[in-house]
Amino acid sequence: MLVNSAVRTDGRSPDQLRPVSIERGWNKHAEGSVLVSFGDTRVLCTATVTEGVPRWRKGSGEGWVTAEYAMLPRSTNTRGDRESVRGKIGGRTHEISRLVGRSLRAVVDHRALGENTVVLDCDVLQADGGTRTAAITGAFVALADAVRWMQAHKVMKSKANPLVGTVSAISVGIVGGVPLLDLAYEEDVRAETDMNVICTGDGRFVEVQGTAEGAPFDRSELDLLLDLAVAGCSRLDALQQAALAGEPA
Amino acid sequence: MLVNSAVRTDGRSPDQLRPVSIERGWNKHAEGSVLVSFGDTRVLCTATVTEGVPRWRKGSGEGWVTAEYAMLPRSTNTRGDRESVRGKIGGRTHEISRLVGRSLRAVVDHRALGENTVVLDCDVLQADGGTRTAAITGAFVALADAVRWMQAHKVMKSKANPLVGTVSAISVGIVGGVPLLDLAYEEDVRAETDMNVICTGDGRFVEVQGTAEGAPFDRSELDLLLDLAVAGCSRLDALQQAALAGEPA
Amino acid sequence: MLVNSAVRTDGRSPDQLRPVSIERGWNKHAEGSVLVSFGDTRVLCTATVTEGVPRWRKGSGEGWVTAEYAMLPRSTNTRGDRESVRGKIGGRTHEISRLVGRSLRAVVDHRALGENTVVLDCDVLQADGGTRTAAITGAFVALADAVRWMQAHKVMKSKANPLVGTVSAISVGIVGGVPLLDLAYEEDVRAETDMNVICTGDGRFVEVQGTAEGAPFDRSELDLLLDLAVAGCSRLDALQQAALAGEPA
Amino acid sequence: MLVNSAVRTDGRSPDQLRPVSIERGWNKHAEGSVLVSFGDTRVLCTATVTEGVPRWRKGSGEGWVTAEYAMLPRSTNTRGDRESVRGKIGGRTHEISRLVGRSLRAVVDHRALGENTVVLDCDVLQADGGTRTAAITGAFVALADAVRWMQAHKVMKSKANPLVGTVSAISVGIVGGVPLLDLAYEEDVRAETDMNVICTGDGRFVEVQGTAEGAPFDRSELDLLLDLAVAGCSRLDALQQAALAGEPA
Amino acid sequence: MLVNSAVRTDGRSPDQLRPVSIERGWNKHAEGSVLVSFGDTRVLCTATVTEGVPRWRKGSGEGWVTAEYAMLPRSTNTRGDRESVRGKIGGRTHEISRLVGRSLRAVVDHRALGENTVVLDCDVLQADGGTRTAAITGAFVALADAVRWMQAHKVMKSKANPLVGTVSAISVGIVGGVPLLDLAYEEDVRAETDMNVICTGDGRFVEVQGTAEGAPFDRSELDLLLDLAVAGCSRLDALQQAALAGEPA
Amino acid sequence: MLVNSAVRTDGRSPDQLRPVSIERGWNKHAEGSVLVSFGDTRVLCTATVTEGVPRWRKGSGEGWVTAEYAMLPRSTNTRGDRESVRGKIGGRTHEISRLVGRSLRAVVDHRALGENTVVLDCDVLQADGGTRTAAITGAFVALADAVRWMQAHKVMKSKANPLVGTVSAISVGIVGGVPLLDLAYEEDVRAETDMNVICTGDGRFVEVQGTAEGAPFDRSELDLLLDLAVAGCSRLDALQQAALAGEPA
Repeated sequence: MLVNSAVRTDGRSPDQLRPVSIERGWNKHAEGSVLVSFGDTRVLCTATVTEGVPRWRKGSGEGWVTAEYAMLPRSTNTRGDRESVRGKIGGRTHEISRLVGRSLRAVVDHRALGENTVVLDCDVLQADGGTRTAAITGAFVALADAVRWMQAHKVMKSKANPLVGTVSAISVGIVGGVPLLDLAYEEDVRAETDMNVICTGDGRFVEVQGTAEGAPFDRSELDLLLDLAVAGCSRLDALQQAALAGEPA
Repeated sequence: MLVNSAVRTDGRSPDQLRPVSIERGWNKHAEGSVLVSFGDTRVLCTATVTEGVPRWRKGSGEGWVTAEYAMLPRSTNTRGDRESVRGKIGGRTHEISRLVGRSLRAVVDHRALGENTVVLDCDVLQADGGTRTAAITGAFVALADAVRWMQAHKVMKSKANPLVGTVSAISVGIVGGVPLLDLAYEEDVRAETDMNVICTGDGRFVEVQGTAEGAPFDRSELDLLLDLAVAGCSRLDALQQAALAGEPA
Repeated sequence: MLVNSAVRTDGRSPDQLRPVSIERGWNKHAEGSVLVSFGDTRVLCTATVTEGVPRWRKGSGEGWVTAEYAMLPRSTNTRGDRESVRGKIGGRTHEISRLVGRSLRAVVDHRALGENTVVLDCDVLQADGGTRTAAITGAFVALADAVRWMQAHKVMKSKANPLVGTVSAISVGIVGGVPLLDLAYEEDVRAETDMNVICTGDGRFVEVQGTAEGAPFDRSELDLLLDLAVAGCSRLDALQQAALAGEPA
Repeated sequence: MLVNSAVRTDGRSPDQLRPVSIERGWNKHAEGSVLVSFGDTRVLCTATVTEGVPRWRKGSGEGWVTAEYAMLPRSTNTRGDRESVRGKIGGRTHEISRLVGRSLRAVVDHRALGENTVVLDCDVLQADGGTRTAAITGAFVALADAVRWMQAHKVMKSKANPLVGTVSAISVGIVGGVPLLDLAYEEDVRAETDMNVICTGDGRFVEVQGTAEGAPFDRSELDLLLDLAVAGCSRLDALQQAALAGEPA
Repeated sequence: MLVNSAVRTDGRSPDQLRPVSIERGWNKHAEGSVLVSFGDTRVLCTATVTEGVPRWRKGSGEGWVTAEYAMLPRSTNTRGDRESVRGKIGGRTHEISRLVGRSLRAVVDHRALGENTVVLDCDVLQADGGTRTAAITGAFVALADAVRWMQAHKVMKSKANPLVGTVSAISVGIVGGVPLLDLAYEEDVRAETDMNVICTGDGRFVEVQGTAEGAPFDRSELDLLLDLAVAGCSRLDALQQAALAGEPA
Repeated sequence: MLVNSAVRTDGRSPDQLRPVSIERGWNKHAEGSVLVSFGDTRVLCTATVTEGVPRWRKGSGEGWVTAEYAMLPRSTNTRGDRESVRGKIGGRTHEISRLVGRSLRAVVDHRALGENTVVLDCDVLQADGGTRTAAITGAFVALADAVRWMQAHKVMKSKANPLVGTVSAISVGIVGGVPLLDLAYEEDVRAETDMNVICTGDGRFVEVQGTAEGAPFDRSELDLLLDLAVAGCSRLDALQQAALAGEPA
């Protein structure tokens, strides 16, 4: 397959991430907060720690990590109605909120967390493709900061680290026959196949969601996309570690 | 890896489907209808044909296929509240409805369909794992019957067949370290990894959704699961063809 | 008045029920379940037993029996929107749910039931007139099976039978001047007067709901309709007893 | 059966109505308005005339009459939550709104009305039993005033009177074994059987709704209740005519 | 500035209130109730006393006073949809409910009230401008009656009077360049500036809400409006005292 | 009155604003966008231009400017539930959205705007008191940028400037007996009186909303607060002009 960099309007090579930034400490109230950017996609992730767990988990000795994803009305090219005004949450919002929560829980030891809840709010301030993958990648850092806060404030009884791994996410897709990493919106729209991959820092899979937007895809295409995604997540993992090594803003 | 058939409470081998039945013509009003069973999972799929398309598609010359999935309150072991009574649709319902619709559209030529809409209602009468895969598999047959009805009633102007392929779906998962095909509920609960795979009749992928419920999974496990799923879908495809070759009830 | 059997498209005599079937044990999860058919009208009734009662009844020593009625979207000739999607329950649904619950409670000794709740879900799979009367007739059998289950599982402290009678329901109406029993949809649409009658097995009334759809009706017409209905319920009562005497499927 | 007037706390005889008042012209904006009282039950009925009909009736040449019933939060002995605050209309409200609309439509010639809509709002200011029967009785008078307004303003093309009859409603019930007319709240609570009867001015039935609250009732009890109700409606009809013969307030 | 009484269609002078009536005891169930009229604006205010306070106030030893405002659908010139039917409360309703509650709480000693709640329901039966000011003025009298009821029934442990002042409200506005008191609807529509002022009986301000409907207003106009409003509230205070000195109806 | 600067925890003098920043061009999609900060209060304001107006304004030849205000869940010290999740918008949100829209419309010539709509979304990213005043102040700048965009893209037929003035807003209050400008959250909580004042650039009032949180306030206090607010708005006006004179980010 000819890898043709001309396919990307921003001049990136097919296996190149957009510029990624992870700013910690963006909100003075939250126990953890991150403004994450994948190119022009910008998501504010805040972590809220509360004592106690949802009713169905009470008395289990285990904590709970969950997430809510939403888009500001004009985060997109044309304004969308607010879900609060429509009076209900759309299917896509629900689906992504559940995905973000599930992805984070994959690296959480709920017993070490104790009966505490961490809610990750991921609000898209500006969208340009890949909002869910930016949300997961940023939310993990906000969660890590919240865990540090809990340790500093002795919220957990257990000495064990409730984070048993790290997690990041990236989109991949086939556009004009070429497998590409980290699709911008304009690429996403033209993709024949679109896949979101969520990996742990050690390169294993937490979630793989591939969808044929145009023609169904075959096994060899799937394999190429997985290769690209694993490499992308590995770079995101390094950026997360670097951000967490610095001082919050 | 030792493949141990003892792992399954119903005595199936790891790569064996549950008994599948596909009864056509279960509803006298609908343009297509199927009662599909995967073991004790039973889903009623009806196809409704209406002239016209949603507002955002008007004047495009293209049709629309969409789906709604729901569970009866006591389809499950403990009764769930009705979503109509709660006044909103839950995240899981939304997610599966979208998945079913997307899967069917992958084999539809919307231009051949003309400006007509087909709604597939998939109502779970009894649940025992795999309700979404049964829904997709049954809904495809109901859709095929609806297309025949449209051809018989000359609803479409185009002579082209709006169905450009066939589609079916199956769940796979790793339970106790063993990759298994078509998980029953009791297996699904214990699965470390759970994957739903939607394939066309020619063995390509429409959608792949793999989730680590316990530990993240690695590439070799992913490959084994995909192998199982592709073989399972191939058998479902044969059962769909057989059902469509017979007379509706 | 000339009783003209030609009035009925299916050839029934005016005082004849449609073929009635009552299949028990249709759902493996529910404590009682019945698929009831009055001709082409098909309703799935499940009974769910739970310990405890609604808040306003706590500490009373009395149980509670309630019902929820709903129609699948394509149970009717043209597809109706789902009430869960519209985000609220319609007036007709509310009204019938309340009617089914009230009818069953008329033959329940709530004290004997103890502080337990039985919810009867009546979901119309296919509609052809008389869905509410089929629902009541089927739900009583599901309730009876649930009571047997409670007795077998020693859920109730009291030895008294919480069922103090039996109950069934039938529609009657005047079509083309002729009083008819058990109206099919096509007859119901043409009825000048429409009445639903709910009787106990000993021939007394639990509920009488008569409505003039066209011209108001007089006392003699009302009397004829009540005669027809009482006879119809008596036959349904026999069918219920026969079903309960057999083995569940 | 011993008819014992001592049964009624307000000293009425069993077949006596409470004091009824019908004040017309209670609202300066509405095309018809009535404050109706049955004893301490007080309902404000307003009729609103608008050109045009609901979408499903457009082009039919026929008008539409509908009703909405509601209770003020403290119309009852203990305050009820507002349905607007709860975000949905309860089953009882729905049921009564439908009943009021159906009862009025029974005496309307929709063709003579032309494609105009009349909405009857029946808001209970104070409740003491019989709110739905007071609502129907008052709403008919408000409707009659609205029809006069339409005639005076030449809203209808047809010369025919859109009111082809008159309608009123009353409750009856068996309390302590005694059949009583027009139950006050305290009687209603103790009733073994409760029936609402809606009659035209010529003594025919528009609707009969009888419910066994305690033991099921037999045919002879039903007959006694119908006799009482027909006589009560006849007196209400006279009061409606007297009110309509006077000047509005 | 020329003060021209000709500006008012009902012949009032600019600083004149409409005829005000305050009828106590309008509802037999409520602990306090008032039908208040400002000209053709008519609001039914009921006070409901319940033991206990909202969850967030439990254990504080303090009571709570709150209000709900609503309009009947045909209280206005053209019928408005019911908020219960629309399934949500509009912004204006919310805003006025909050204003009424806040205004009353300004004269309540919540500690003296003890952990009891008083809900003031203000339902507009007929609207002709100034519904919120009539609601506040009437609700205060209903609240005063409810407090007397609580004293008579020894509901409060404290001997202190929970009412530490009196409160009334009036609208003022500039119409055709002339500052006017107590705007009727037809004046309100033409007002360049519209202000609602809520005063205590001793002439201090509880709330001042001034809005430029047309051109922004300057400080001298603001001063004139405040003068008018303070004088108007003083007269309303006298009418409230007179009403409370009489016997309830 | 002793003016004691020690009253303010951040060392400001009573008549001093917090540091204000107005960053234009914060969103690449919106026709105007501003990130406005009043101290730690941070609001993202975007302006969306669409052709056409709401239905009730069609054919009027006039445009429409409206606003929606919302808070991110963790913009505050403790996390609030999302209004989209609760399924309805709270009273405070409604009230502020309406206030922002009204304030902007006071300086708009709707005829010059033509039949176009501008929606201002004001989303609070971090809250520390004064969110509504920051929202109005920032939204005006976003609106001004949107108007420039409309002029550049020749969206309006009229040559007239649709902005006939400028508008800004500030809070004032009495804390510990001292009138203060621009209350931070911690001051707002302790305020006896709280007032929001919206002024045009020429020092006239668009809206004045004063509320006694503790004791009612008298005329001299009101006068002092108005003086403070007018001076504060004058400084905000200068900052808005300076921001609009620069290049957007």
